[in-house]
Amino acid sequence: MDINVVNFAEKFSKLEELHSYKIIAQMNDYYFKIVRAKREFIWHSHPETDEVFVVIEGELKIDLRDKTLHLKQGDMVVIPRGVEHKPSCSEECHLLLIEPAETVNTGDKESDLTDMDLEWI
Amino acid sequence: MDINVVNFAEKFSKLEELHSYKIIAQMNDYYFKIVRAKREFIWHSHPETDEVFVVIEGELKIDLRDKTLHLKQGDMVVIPRGVEHKPSCSEECHLLLIEPAETVNTGDKESDLTDMDLEWI
Repeated sequence: MDINVVNFAEKFSKLEELHSYKIIAQMNDYYFKIVRAKREFIWHSHPETDEVFVVIEGELKIDLRDKTLHLKQGDMVVIPRGVEHKPSCSEECHLLLIEPAETVNTGDKESDLTDMDLEWI
Repeated sequence: MDINVVNFAEKFSKLEELHSYKIIAQMNDYYFKIVRAKREFIWHSHPETDEVFVVIEGELKIDLRDKTLHLKQGDMVVIPRGVEHKPSCSEECHLLLIEPAETVNTGDKESDLTDMDLEWI
């Protein structure tokens, strides 16, 4: 069994495209995924699961229906299952997402932004 | 429902004791736990679950039976279920652990180091 240390910065240095989700680790049936983002995402929710966002670099805004969260480097948040949210990064941000392997980025919404093509990096 | 941003450094600033595990977030049935460590831990494994270590500050050594992993700030590792490991920090390190809520820190080993008294911080 191959057990290796994963360095976040090194993984991001290999990730050339914006908005391309890549898997960096698996814990049981959960994936740790990274993405370089610079966009306004769509309103969506994940009816089956909580979702974790960790900001590795930059700033992330997450609109909820009743307030707006502002995350910076070293911050995380758990978006509970079923809660509508709209993430956005006005400048490029580096995000770590933790969620069940089968979770779709756009949740309950069909969208051009849906990314089902997950590869390891 | 109260959804709040969690800042790792701020949580560690409230954690005065060494070797006291505190919960900072919950995702489904998983806890995100922090600990300030400066000790050599015991050999143990978790037969039921993978376990994630993330180094928030300092350096962490994890002995496996066939090699030794060296983690520094910005590194993570997944220790697969059933794999014996012995974490140690010769200097104080700040760790984030991600694992199912029922996971015991000493896994399959009974020890004076077993900590069942988990509170939120």
